[in-house]
Amino acid sequence: MGNDDETVESLGEFGLIDLIAARLPQGEQVVIGPGDDAAVLKTGDGRVVATTDVLAEGRHFRRAWSSPYDVGRKAAAQSLADIAAMGARPTALLVALTLPAELPAAWPLDLADGLRDECARVGASVVGGDLVRDQQITIAVAALGDLGGHDPITRGGARPGDAVAVAGRLGWSVAGLAVLQQGTVIRTAAADAVIGAHRRPQPPYDLALQAAAAGATALIDVSDGLLQDLGHVAEASAVAIDLDSAALVPDPELVEIAASVRADPASWVLTGGEDHAFAACLPGPGIPAGWRRVGRVAHGARVTVDGRVFTGAGGFDHFRTL
Amino acid sequence: MGNDDETVESLGEFGLIDLIAARLPQGEQVVIGPGDDAAVLKTGDGRVVATTDVLAEGRHFRRAWSSPYDVGRKAAAQSLADIAAMGARPTALLVALTLPAELPAAWPLDLADGLRDECARVGASVVGGDLVRDQQITIAVAALGDLGGHDPITRGGARPGDAVAVAGRLGWSVAGLAVLQQGTVIRTAAADAVIGAHRRPQPPYDLALQAAAAGATALIDVSDGLLQDLGHVAEASAVAIDLDSAALVPDPELVEIAASVRADPASWVLTGGEDHAFAACLPGPGIPAGWRRVGRVAHGARVTVDGRVFTGAGGFDHFRTL
Repeated sequence: MGNDDETVESLGEFGLIDLIAARLPQGEQVVIGPGDDAAVLKTGDGRVVATTDVLAEGRHFRRAWSSPYDVGRKAAAQSLADIAAMGARPTALLVALTLPAELPAAWPLDLADGLRDECARVGASVVGGDLVRDQQITIAVAALGDLGGHDPITRGGARPGDAVAVAGRLGWSVAGLAVLQQGTVIRTAAADAVIGAHRRPQPPYDLALQAAAAGATALIDVSDGLLQDLGHVAEASAVAIDLDSAALVPDPELVEIAASVRADPASWVLTGGEDHAFAACLPGPGIPAGWRRVGRVAHGARVTVDGRVFTGAGGFDHFRTL
Repeated sequence: MGNDDETVESLGEFGLIDLIAARLPQGEQVVIGPGDDAAVLKTGDGRVVATTDVLAEGRHFRRAWSSPYDVGRKAAAQSLADIAAMGARPTALLVALTLPAELPAAWPLDLADGLRDECARVGASVVGGDLVRDQQITIAVAALGDLGGHDPITRGGARPGDAVAVAGRLGWSVAGLAVLQQGTVIRTAAADAVIGAHRRPQPPYDLALQAAAAGATALIDVSDGLLQDLGHVAEASAVAIDLDSAALVPDPELVEIAASVRADPASWVLTGGEDHAFAACLPGPGIPAGWRRVGRVAHGARVTVDGRVFTGAGGFDHFRTL
């Protein structure tokens, strides 16, 4: 960037693509990276895992609340977590952007840095993308991954008797959102921590792969809230899941923030979305390091907490909430 | 659909996803289709080809001008053509949608039918997606493909002496757009034909694969206009390309429409985007059936027509035109 006044429009589609591509290192699995009609990747496993997610401005992030670098980290994390939730190592991202013409060119460049750095956590590369002008920013991220010879871990393999375990934070992103929505700046360490968690979720990718290697029967990315996502597992596996509230006590940071915004921190843990923790069902007897046991799979068809249906706020539906 | 009054919002994210997934047959390459954190596909070649493109309402289509089915066909065609332009057979699409809450639910369902039917032309499957609410419709389509043991055909292999050939229509989509933009309804067979071409491009996927098999040294999807896309080939291959205007005479339909809207049909052929024809460089001596010879690769660094730089309207930059 030689000029801070450059906008998306003044640089143009190809000028911007060139600057973005120059920031993106290509891993050893990449045969052909950005710049041609399509990328080419090695898939030594003989299969490829593939997913896509889209972030929309005003819905998943606000420019006033998150830096473009943070949005890039979050956009990458969301799709990379879905790959890891199949028990696969993420290898590549493809990023389709819509951008307002008057947006400073630094915005998508910082976004690209965020995408790149989140990819670096798992050894993936940004191998391609597309840019078009639109009134709002949307970021659609497709991710690819490699199973490394192992079976994919779906939502459908949980069996009665399995332990239910969680790796990663729960309720932090929604707590951060609550602080940001309140408007007044709360300057405490807890507020900073949950705002940071909202801006930049930190999926524990390696823990997901370790659960897969440890024989997880079901594995899922907690993107819409623990109860809702475990509901998908229960339905796909035709089992019941009972959670133990004593194992899901809100972290002290959530208790502090909930008190200041008059919310229920236990509901945040059970229904808060976008933390991109992982939930697994494990046949036992032990569970992998870094995972915590939060419940048990049983015969039946519902998700309960201490044997009862949870009656607090629901999970995250991208059409219905916010 | 039991209820024509259903909207995107009333059905909800998961209700809509279930209805869409039910419309999408899964091909034999699909190990795990829609419904889990990610899809899993076989990649017998040991590599996978991957690309993404995004269509934005108001920029690539208007609801008043195109049915959702046509938009689905176009969105799929755009990404499938990029895969074929690498010499690969498309295998799968992932579709990330943003949709207004008040949009009738029939709209994304008809879109899904269009995506499905365009995929059927090449044996690909829609294996996953994401839905979020936003004020505008955007459709980001990632496509995957299989090289079948052959080398990918990039933009960078053209050699002086190669023939330049084209398969598919040129200038039809921009002619159709010109008719639609004029507002008054022109009811001629030519007008209907070019409007149809704008709504639903028809990339000749099999001809692209045949050119790859015939030893094409470079292959590209003509999405931004012939001159601009051949400019990418010239740059990547470090060659000059000279086109023969006698081989690029506008079709009679274009001549008729250009006369009625006071445009230059020869410019449409050279610079019109979104037809998703293919351009190839071929070492010869012959060229595959269905392809037409339009020029020659030479030493140098420019794209010319009859030896001269074309000075008409430029190609399609998604930030600068329309």
